[in-house]
Amino acid sequence: MIGLERKVYHMAKIKVGVAGYGTIGQRLADGVAMQGDMELVGIADLAPTLSIRALRENDMIGANNVKYNLYLVDGADRDAFAKYDIPVAGTFEELCRSVDIMLDSSPGGVGAKNKELYEKVGVKAIFQGGEKNSVADVFFHGYANYEKGLGQNYLKLTSCNTTGLIRAVDCLDRVIGIEKVAITIIRRVADPGDYHRGLTNALQIDKAPSHQAVDLMTIMPHVEATGILVHTPVTHGHIITVLATAKDGKKITREMALEAFRKHPRIRTVTIDEGFKGNASLFKYARDLGNRRGDMYEIGLWEDSIVESGNDIMFAINIPQESVTIPETIDAIRASMKMQLTREEGTAKTNEYLKIGRFKKL
Amino acid sequence: MIGLERKVYHMAKIKVGVAGYGTIGQRLADGVAMQGDMELVGIADLAPTLSIRALRENDMIGANNVKYNLYLVDGADRDAFAKYDIPVAGTFEELCRSVDIMLDSSPGGVGAKNKELYEKVGVKAIFQGGEKNSVADVFFHGYANYEKGLGQNYLKLTSCNTTGLIRAVDCLDRVIGIEKVAITIIRRVADPGDYHRGLTNALQIDKAPSHQAVDLMTIMPHVEATGILVHTPVTHGHIITVLATAKDGKKITREMALEAFRKHPRIRTVTIDEGFKGNASLFKYARDLGNRRGDMYEIGLWEDSIVESGNDIMFAINIPQESVTIPETIDAIRASMKMQLTREEGTAKTNEYLKIGRFKKL
Amino acid sequence: MIGLERKVYHMAKIKVGVAGYGTIGQRLADGVAMQGDMELVGIADLAPTLSIRALRENDMIGANNVKYNLYLVDGADRDAFAKYDIPVAGTFEELCRSVDIMLDSSPGGVGAKNKELYEKVGVKAIFQGGEKNSVADVFFHGYANYEKGLGQNYLKLTSCNTTGLIRAVDCLDRVIGIEKVAITIIRRVADPGDYHRGLTNALQIDKAPSHQAVDLMTIMPHVEATGILVHTPVTHGHIITVLATAKDGKKITREMALEAFRKHPRIRTVTIDEGFKGNASLFKYARDLGNRRGDMYEIGLWEDSIVESGNDIMFAINIPQESVTIPETIDAIRASMKMQLTREEGTAKTNEYLKIGRFKKL
Amino acid sequence: MIGLERKVYHMAKIKVGVAGYGTIGQRLADGVAMQGDMELVGIADLAPTLSIRALRENDMIGANNVKYNLYLVDGADRDAFAKYDIPVAGTFEELCRSVDIMLDSSPGGVGAKNKELYEKVGVKAIFQGGEKNSVADVFFHGYANYEKGLGQNYLKLTSCNTTGLIRAVDCLDRVIGIEKVAITIIRRVADPGDYHRGLTNALQIDKAPSHQAVDLMTIMPHVEATGILVHTPVTHGHIITVLATAKDGKKITREMALEAFRKHPRIRTVTIDEGFKGNASLFKYARDLGNRRGDMYEIGLWEDSIVESGNDIMFAINIPQESVTIPETIDAIRASMKMQLTREEGTAKTNEYLKIGRFKKL
Repeated sequence: MIGLERKVYHMAKIKVGVAGYGTIGQRLADGVAMQGDMELVGIADLAPTLSIRALRENDMIGANNVKYNLYLVDGADRDAFAKYDIPVAGTFEELCRSVDIMLDSSPGGVGAKNKELYEKVGVKAIFQGGEKNSVADVFFHGYANYEKGLGQNYLKLTSCNTTGLIRAVDCLDRVIGIEKVAITIIRRVADPGDYHRGLTNALQIDKAPSHQAVDLMTIMPHVEATGILVHTPVTHGHIITVLATAKDGKKITREMALEAFRKHPRIRTVTIDEGFKGNASLFKYARDLGNRRGDMYEIGLWEDSIVESGNDIMFAINIPQESVTIPETIDAIRASMKMQLTREEGTAKTNEYLKIGRFKKL
Repeated sequence: MIGLERKVYHMAKIKVGVAGYGTIGQRLADGVAMQGDMELVGIADLAPTLSIRALRENDMIGANNVKYNLYLVDGADRDAFAKYDIPVAGTFEELCRSVDIMLDSSPGGVGAKNKELYEKVGVKAIFQGGEKNSVADVFFHGYANYEKGLGQNYLKLTSCNTTGLIRAVDCLDRVIGIEKVAITIIRRVADPGDYHRGLTNALQIDKAPSHQAVDLMTIMPHVEATGILVHTPVTHGHIITVLATAKDGKKITREMALEAFRKHPRIRTVTIDEGFKGNASLFKYARDLGNRRGDMYEIGLWEDSIVESGNDIMFAINIPQESVTIPETIDAIRASMKMQLTREEGTAKTNEYLKIGRFKKL
Repeated sequence: MIGLERKVYHMAKIKVGVAGYGTIGQRLADGVAMQGDMELVGIADLAPTLSIRALRENDMIGANNVKYNLYLVDGADRDAFAKYDIPVAGTFEELCRSVDIMLDSSPGGVGAKNKELYEKVGVKAIFQGGEKNSVADVFFHGYANYEKGLGQNYLKLTSCNTTGLIRAVDCLDRVIGIEKVAITIIRRVADPGDYHRGLTNALQIDKAPSHQAVDLMTIMPHVEATGILVHTPVTHGHIITVLATAKDGKKITREMALEAFRKHPRIRTVTIDEGFKGNASLFKYARDLGNRRGDMYEIGLWEDSIVESGNDIMFAINIPQESVTIPETIDAIRASMKMQLTREEGTAKTNEYLKIGRFKKL
Repeated sequence: MIGLERKVYHMAKIKVGVAGYGTIGQRLADGVAMQGDMELVGIADLAPTLSIRALRENDMIGANNVKYNLYLVDGADRDAFAKYDIPVAGTFEELCRSVDIMLDSSPGGVGAKNKELYEKVGVKAIFQGGEKNSVADVFFHGYANYEKGLGQNYLKLTSCNTTGLIRAVDCLDRVIGIEKVAITIIRRVADPGDYHRGLTNALQIDKAPSHQAVDLMTIMPHVEATGILVHTPVTHGHIITVLATAKDGKKITREMALEAFRKHPRIRTVTIDEGFKGNASLFKYARDLGNRRGDMYEIGLWEDSIVESGNDIMFAINIPQESVTIPETIDAIRASMKMQLTREEGTAKTNEYLKIGRFKKL
């Protein structure tokens, strides 16, 4: 692992590659392209998917006017790319050898296979929620355990729901100390454009406890968590209700929770009265903002959903599933590469480049 | 009120009328028609709706081979009924004068107006959840407060979600004593066939606390309840997750809860493994049973959703919104008319005639 | 085939078996149970599905108070049935040997395999639309080519959309002679209760021409047909728009079409004004009728959708996908068994027992 | 009208205002902001809607880095805007007096009222499809009747479906001459984010003929058109099937149609095989392109939907309802202001600035 150590503490921009240009990979590439202290060396994929053809239609120019160089993974058919006149920069291995760190957003399970290459060429990597925890040294969340990721070679991000959920629970935890949470996840069943999965006029329940509750306990081991997940036939964001219990029988007041949530850069507090009626309002708002792809990095939190239940507090959050993990993944680069050594500095730098939290000043 | 008293303690069948032949009214009429100790004198409505035209297509024969005589409320256009050759038995007032008790399933608010007539002619009445509580002497639930309804003239039923929710909470309460519940209601936004309301690819959140939590506290004043409601674009049943806390810090084990639920006649415990994947599975199952209208009187409760959260218990139930209140409304007739004097006897008789709980023996 | 011939021209009831007790199989069993001149000997299936468990919950009593005896196909696990206390009457082969004709509603492709057994034991069979045409001697539709099925051993029914479509096109064809049709199928993507398929917020288009247009030409070879099919995220019935061109440049007037449709027993003409706003209205109406499973045998046809396009006529029909093929399948029994020798007599007998067309007199 | 004439033939940029900053208004403002020969003077609205608050969150900077100055219509509450610190540039009348032409995308009916002001201050205006035809001098479509709009003071655009439909029909018409079309509109029932309208598990049919067919005949009077419209519970684009008949009994071959469609800058021909499975694929693709708001100006046309029906041709198109009318509205400015005097020049200039048709070269 000496080879990896050589690369950290760069004065120059950190070189980043992205494996898998799907729903998450596209957004990771965009997120990296927006970081002033990172360089997107390239992206890697297997086939000339519509996402890659869209990139080609834009002359391979992505976010922040950055060119996205395309590398091909093993097994890719070069002729298929040539057919659409898509320029190819090299092989996956060449990409891996050209970067300090890979963001792996391959389909679930492929990341574990890719890790063999990462180890071979001596490059760090950050995996997404679809991989098993064992693929990584640390199961990571930018706000909850940034320091655990410092200098680590292989990190795995929490999944979309868990990422957003932990933002809110960690936020309360740092104010009063949280002992227990019970969640209900009202899950979007597909992303916009998905034809390979879907529900029609049906709610679908999973066996309890949901994996998100279990994952939360892995990241925040002092919290006892359980929960139930129900799939719903929508595409624009999950809604999670959270019932949180403080340590030592302390009461969490509505005001206390509201104040904490309002201060968090990655939590957008909204109200029904002003027009945020549900997950689709937040999706529309992100489009109205002109955000690339109509994405939003913040989770929504309805102020008028916050209610006290005895000493406990209950509230509802909205998870923009396509984009919510991007900031914490960028945080992971910062931790792994020791670009910033504290949670506060690391997340602040990510937020600055992603323009997160600007609205807090309004 | 002397007039009303005269009518109770009949040896003969109790005479029942139904005002409003909509989604609930049709099912109330069916429910009464199935009671061996009740007589459906007639139904009343305003216009030759499709529901009434369907009845006409069946020669006015409804459930249990009973003829449903149609009475017209004030303002009804007799010619409109004549156009479709729909026989009319008389006026709404005539119906009210011919019965011991009216079941009022008029549109919300109309029941309060109808009450003037009920008082005038001296007939008892049971209102549905759409009316204000003030319309009635008692806010009623067959299992939770049957005795409070005994001999009362005006009762109001809980709404569909609250009715099903209280079944489950009351069930636990009688076993261990419940002190607090926090609920998340994943609400179906429309009934099958509704074109006047609907959501498309959107979840919609209501201000917390939900009225169902508040209503539960009215019926079960020793329980502190709160909750969040989210509308979802489906039609076949609500799903509610419940987190229940026992009194005095007692622990509710999974086994304890499961045993209690399995014994309850109006709770159908199911599992995901056997194929009950969500609300639509239960709707399909009711159709496969050949149940009239594809209805189900029981709430569903997923055994594999029951999880412990510290000392608390969490679980998910399914509410068949169109039919769930029918048994408790029949219970209300029994209480109001003093047909049976205890909760156990009243609900048992209702269950017997509605064939509820047969499956428990399998 | 001598063996088969022996069985026809019975004075006694025709003995019928049903293979596969799924969405179609259940309804075929019900349909047969309602025929005064047929006897449902039994049904066959592989596993104790929820549909079979629903039957068990009803003590194996189905439509028309008929007992549905259950036979097990090869590979069925008897213990699994015993676990739920489901009585078993015998093997699939025993069922086949006890009947005059089998209705095969097995999953697509299994029917072709079952045919080997049907041939071995010398029993006739009728296959559903999921099988290839080659499985049968005749591709059959009760109204369009009844006589072709007379005495045939193996018939295959048209699929749900094609069955309903041909009803309407054949209806016009017999009035004026149809030369060409162009259809747009707005298809429901799943049945109520389906969790294995579904679309969420998406329309999905198939390659043209749709198979329904091709199938129509097989049944009605004098008509040129083409069409486009789009899947939509709903469960209660397909809607098809039809543009029909008469032979020899003749004009089809709106009145001519309307008169023909109104006379057809299996076409229910409705209007938007009276409240039939779409496919869900028709589903609700069938439930309000108290029809078993909320089914409807007739296709809906919107009178206010009929418009002239030059000499052509355009209109929209509704296909209740779960139940629409039942009458034509019963017709197929009648044809195959030579119970009635003409289209008019055969379909009339089916209609009588299924109570189709009663509403025409209103 | 002399006042109006003064303003045309500017060498300087044409000054444009937008009334109503809703779904269409936002996109019109963006479209104008992208035109090199136009200046967006400002937008006008009534309340600090979420769309305007999103603009505020971006410091009032919209597309192409242009500042969108906000003017308030009569009745607007200035304090409500001040509450959110939204800068106000002036009144609606002041905006109208500062521009050469107004794009009116007010709610249906309000445009007619606004016209009084436009006439008073002597400014031209272009109305959207929600207004009555009588509000304008010309019912306009950039490709079908550009020259009719030349120098006219008041134009009304076709609605979203009609705009896209006419693109395709006009495209064929110019190749071979079209005499008759029959359309089936599979309509999205709501836009993403809509909570005031929606369908849940239901198709809804309108009375025939659909207004789009009637509107097409107004723009293209030599064509006979009819059609049926069915609403479906989706948000990402309508699909229309078109059956087109050529004049004089000529045959339209698949190749002929395909060649014409492929050449049209505002028609994006796609195939199912490459992954464009339906309307949601096109929405996703536009997001993947990084298009502002995830919009697309082109209609989609499935090459594998094109089939011959005798001499006629049938095909399916996709209408991106939120953005499809923007190019033709920009065309209308060009025609009304005589910026370009021919259809070819006017639409080409619009296409150039909106970057439409770039992909045709790939």
